Amino acid sequence: MGKLRSKGEETRAKMVASTAKLLQCHGYHGTGLSQIIKESGAPKGSLYFHFPGGKEELATAALIEAGREFSSKLRDSIRPDTDPADAIELACAVLGQELVESDFVQGCPLATVALEAATHSEPIRQACVDHFGEWQNLIKLMLLHHGLEEERASELAMMALATMEGALMLSRVRRSTEPLEQVGRQLHLLLSIVLGRSAD
Amino acid sequence: MGKLRSKGEETRAKMVASTAKLLQCHGYHGTGLSQIIKESGAPKGSLYFHFPGGKEELATAALIEAGREFSSKLRDSIRPDTDPADAIELACAVLGQELVESDFVQGCPLATVALEAATHSEPIRQACVDHFGEWQNLIKLMLLHHGLEEERASELAMMALATMEGALMLSRVRRSTEPLEQVGRQLHLLLSIVLGRSAD
Repeated sequence: MGKLRSKGEETRAKMVASTAKLLQCHGYHGTGLSQIIKESGAPKGSLYFHFPGGKEELATAALIEAGREFSSKLRDSIRPDTDPADAIELACAVLGQELVESDFVQGCPLATVALEAATHSEPIRQACVDHFGEWQNLIKLMLLHHGLEEERASELAMMALATMEGALMLSRVRRSTEPLEQVGRQLHLLLSIVLGRSAD
Repeated sequence: MGKLRSKGEETRAKMVASTAKLLQCHGYHGTGLSQIIKESGAPKGSLYFHFPGGKEELATAALIEAGREFSSKLRDSIRPDTDPADAIELACAVLGQELVESDFVQGCPLATVALEAATHSEPIRQACVDHFGEWQNLIKLMLLHHGLEEERASELAMMALATMEGALMLSRVRRSTEPLEQVGRQLHLLLSIVLGRSAD
């Protein structure tokens, strides 16, 4: 029984991972259920067994999971006690490196679907809103730790997140890490000034 | 003959406009040719007459046209002689207003398709790259006019563009202009500091 359940969980996890990958590359409408079945190697019948709500439910689960992985990646660079200017520049560099390694496919795991499907699906929209909020909060906590007051920290965190999201998109489209690098340097300079240190 | 040609041009323009609208809302894969025919009211046969390359050619034309309109909108706020901090904050406010008026559908006319289709279509990717470059240049010219040196102006313009793009995406997903407003305020503060004035 334990073995059967774990096999089911494994099938579910494979479907979720394949869906996340396909969504990031082709978007919601460009990802077909047959592609997900093929890519994950999951038995056809298992899709509606694990996700009675079909594609929307599976996509939502995939975005939640992919968002979690992205959060943990961001946490490697952005920690409360790190220098915010260094942390954000490092995060931009790491994101740029992943873009290159994935031949400019792996940008933000949510942005593509967020723009394309969030107006049509409330569960998908909510999954995106939750993760974006979490990432903003990660940056905000670091800024609070370095003495910024609540509102300024919150707004600057929103700005840093927006800038990184925009640069990820621009880098992906230009097939060049230049936007992420330029943005990393400028955010470093600006955060250094805001935090009252000389920009080094 | 002149009348016939102008009717053809009108049909073409209607198809391009409808496609741009559908692409922005549903993305490339979510926009069907039958929807474009229906929305534009164009005769079925006219699609391949005007766009022998089919959906990809039509979508590219639509993105080029929508990008031009967006450029002219940006030019209303971002002019070489405007104060850069005021100009960028104003542009964020205008974009936020349009989002609200369109029930959070009309964000960046390129971003959705850029993320979803630019890895699969070189003409679409190129159209996006060209327009993003033009918008960056618009901001850069304004910063140069206010005394920043070439490289700094170029990088700061990239940062401002990336930030606005990211904030448009976040505002659309959150169905709130808050991200654009916060980013507008923070860019105003930061640009004021960079340009050596007290942040007002």
